Amino acid sequence: MIHYHRATRHYRFDFLHMAPAGALSTDLYEFTMAAGYHVAGDTARGTFELFVRELPPTRGYLVAAGLEPALEFLASWRFLPDQIDFLRSVPALAGVPGSFFDEYLPQLRFRGDVWAMPEGTPVFAGEPLLRVTATLAEAQLVETGLLSTVLFQTSVASRAARVAGAAAGRPVTEFGGRRAHGTDAAVAAARAAILGGCAATSNVEAGFRYRIPLAGTMAHSWVMASTDEVSAFRRYEELFGEQAVLVIDTYDPVVATDAMIAAGLKPAAVRLDSGDLDTLSRTVRARLDAASLTSTRILVSGDLDEHRVAALVASRAPIDGFGVGTALSTSSDAPSLSGVYKLVETEQDGVSTPLMKLSEGKRTEPGRKQVWRLREGGRAVSDTVGLIRESGPAGAEPLLRQVMSRGERVLAPVSLSASRSACLTAVTELPAEVRRLEAPADYPVARGAALGRLVERLSTERTGVTPDVE
Amino acid sequence: MIHYHRATRHYRFDFLHMAPAGALSTDLYEFTMAAGYHVAGDTARGTFELFVRELPPTRGYLVAAGLEPALEFLASWRFLPDQIDFLRSVPALAGVPGSFFDEYLPQLRFRGDVWAMPEGTPVFAGEPLLRVTATLAEAQLVETGLLSTVLFQTSVASRAARVAGAAAGRPVTEFGGRRAHGTDAAVAAARAAILGGCAATSNVEAGFRYRIPLAGTMAHSWVMASTDEVSAFRRYEELFGEQAVLVIDTYDPVVATDAMIAAGLKPAAVRLDSGDLDTLSRTVRARLDAASLTSTRILVSGDLDEHRVAALVASRAPIDGFGVGTALSTSSDAPSLSGVYKLVETEQDGVSTPLMKLSEGKRTEPGRKQVWRLREGGRAVSDTVGLIRESGPAGAEPLLRQVMSRGERVLAPVSLSASRSACLTAVTELPAEVRRLEAPADYPVARGAALGRLVERLSTERTGVTPDVE
Repeated sequence: MIHYHRATRHYRFDFLHMAPAGALSTDLYEFTMAAGYHVAGDTARGTFELFVRELPPTRGYLVAAGLEPALEFLASWRFLPDQIDFLRSVPALAGVPGSFFDEYLPQLRFRGDVWAMPEGTPVFAGEPLLRVTATLAEAQLVETGLLSTVLFQTSVASRAARVAGAAAGRPVTEFGGRRAHGTDAAVAAARAAILGGCAATSNVEAGFRYRIPLAGTMAHSWVMASTDEVSAFRRYEELFGEQAVLVIDTYDPVVATDAMIAAGLKPAAVRLDSGDLDTLSRTVRARLDAASLTSTRILVSGDLDEHRVAALVASRAPIDGFGVGTALSTSSDAPSLSGVYKLVETEQDGVSTPLMKLSEGKRTEPGRKQVWRLREGGRAVSDTVGLIRESGPAGAEPLLRQVMSRGERVLAPVSLSASRSACLTAVTELPAEVRRLEAPADYPVARGAALGRLVERLSTERTGVTPDVE
Repeated sequence: MIHYHRATRHYRFDFLHMAPAGALSTDLYEFTMAAGYHVAGDTARGTFELFVRELPPTRGYLVAAGLEPALEFLASWRFLPDQIDFLRSVPALAGVPGSFFDEYLPQLRFRGDVWAMPEGTPVFAGEPLLRVTATLAEAQLVETGLLSTVLFQTSVASRAARVAGAAAGRPVTEFGGRRAHGTDAAVAAARAAILGGCAATSNVEAGFRYRIPLAGTMAHSWVMASTDEVSAFRRYEELFGEQAVLVIDTYDPVVATDAMIAAGLKPAAVRLDSGDLDTLSRTVRARLDAASLTSTRILVSGDLDEHRVAALVASRAPIDGFGVGTALSTSSDAPSLSGVYKLVETEQDGVSTPLMKLSEGKRTEPGRKQVWRLREGGRAVSDTVGLIRESGPAGAEPLLRQVMSRGERVLAPVSLSASRSACLTAVTELPAEVRRLEAPADYPVARGAALGRLVERLSTERTGVTPDVE
């Protein structure tokens, strides 16, 4: 996909195949509807809210993430000529008039307003993380891209907050790229893991793109490819000196530790990737200490998650850092969130109409909403979800802020490290029972009085229709 | 990330941030090791095999997928100047000599040999899907990209084969992009879902990139944004005519069906997305038939998976097609595979040395391997994994074929539709008990005699060392 021309020293790209979040990253029905609005000359604007219906059973809270990439997606969102030509050829769009492809799509940009919770904010079921007001077509066409970007990063950041909390101050390195859902998901997972509290990632592309700390050791293959384990260690330490981390469990970790000590090596750390990490870390620690290698740290990895990390911390195993892979990069215990993006209001000629969907098990709450968080003595005690015209409980902080106006950013991008710090603080403010790893308690989320009245009114109006069922 | 210059009508790209599978999509330790091999002047080649250690409990078989994207990744794999500059700045690589960045990385290309199972081949635990022979550095640096590409698509294709099987001939449309792990994962999932047996996807980018059939209906918001349901239906049908699919469960599906019939509409299909799909589909079918709308199909969706699809098929609910989302796009019941890429042999000066890792619970089997599949009467009856020098059982087919030689493709790319057909055939050949949805049986996989002897010899040699443990 990248063609290098030696003569000109330029790279040429088949770029349409490379855009990670191009405007075609959407569902076909968004186009059928957009065409419908275009044909009808419909100029109404709609407000859509992105929220999670229910928390996974293993989560007491989620951590909002993915906003910055989502805003980048909106800012660069447009249809390129080749993409439009393709759309013209889609059989399901055969009935759509040419003006949709010739005039409408080429000029289309995202010109909506966006309100959002800052990345790193703890969020609960039913609370909008993101609210988009735009023409119905614009708002719909960006739906799939927004959902997949925000939900995935929110999944991973939420898991990372649990894992980092379990590690109780010991650094956690994310290194699950190989099990992520493709190379792009690996980068997004690394970003979200840092946001949720990890200290570093092994994913080099993520380091490049987001300037986040990179960490790495050696693979077992480095040892296997060498004639013997000690020469493999020595060659590595000669090159990386005080930074060398040696993986000691290719054959037998205790044998490897002794051999390493006998050879006079002084690595920064050793890594255990298999076996009984509690017992092995104590044995290895004792041998390192006996050899005066008290500053050589012990890192562990191997199918870890927050529960295994917490158990190792609780047993006071002499472990200085954790490497966590699949649990983070796929949010393995909750690989998807029941996140949706729902129309809550339309606006036509200055008149706003709140809307709700009544589908069985899939109801939505009408109207543009805000979320207020009430704190007492530095602790978050409850949230309220209400209509934007409500004022929220006295002293409570509104969590949704305007980030885009008419397609332009109105709030400066927040750095990943600032969001990470904000996340650590905000998670610490949550009640301990909501943060606990096993059977977390529900955090109280109330409904504003005006929203409550609106829900009641609209449910009655709609269900007042007597269906003609036999 | 895309900048459009009105004057020149050209698009400019910040391309380094867009490559979905650029050469930096790897783990940092691959670079520390590559630097180590460079410094040592090590010219040895290594053979790595990509395989899944254990099948998820819900899978009787996997479907190999992701090979074509993986080969594209290898073919375009190179380090661009900005990427190399970044690597130079990584603190963990501080000890690496300048020649690694100045001379070695810029000229590096993947020049290895690759053997692989064709996409769509059923595969079992311990069987290599992919075998790479290259310099140790090349083989290592591509590890993470190969694993994440192949494992994810294999997960999804495997789930899709189950879902498509459960649908027993009714078409299944993949539309899980919104819950996928980002926009790129959504496209990969759509591709793999088609490969595994789905008929279409809603993901437009996937349609664009792979020319696979696109399908779409309308969202509930189309109905909600309209003053009333019937006008929403009418506007849609006027535009899409015989292709119109109306979503009828925004408020009440039976009321909607009656209103649609009363209005004289004749959609191609209606979609039910909530409620008791079995009962509702019968009620709606009866009303459609009574109105002579016998050719209007009923499509259903809403948190479906292979079990719900199978139950609806078994109960003979009058359903003509299924839409499946999250279950496919995240392989939700098995969101990751225990897939690894392990060094099995090194080759230096013409001498091959088979290798195995003995880490507790993470052993590997040594030597370059082939997988043979034995068929009897059109049924696959057993596989054998053996060393390449073995011949396999009489009449058995070797599954791994050479696809790249010295970095160049030697086998023409296989079209997605050809791979999909091959998959359908090969899955049908599997024993019924291996294919069943609940508690699938193990498929017999034997170890070749020579491989068995090699494993025994190497285990004894290594474990023959008496560890100096107190």
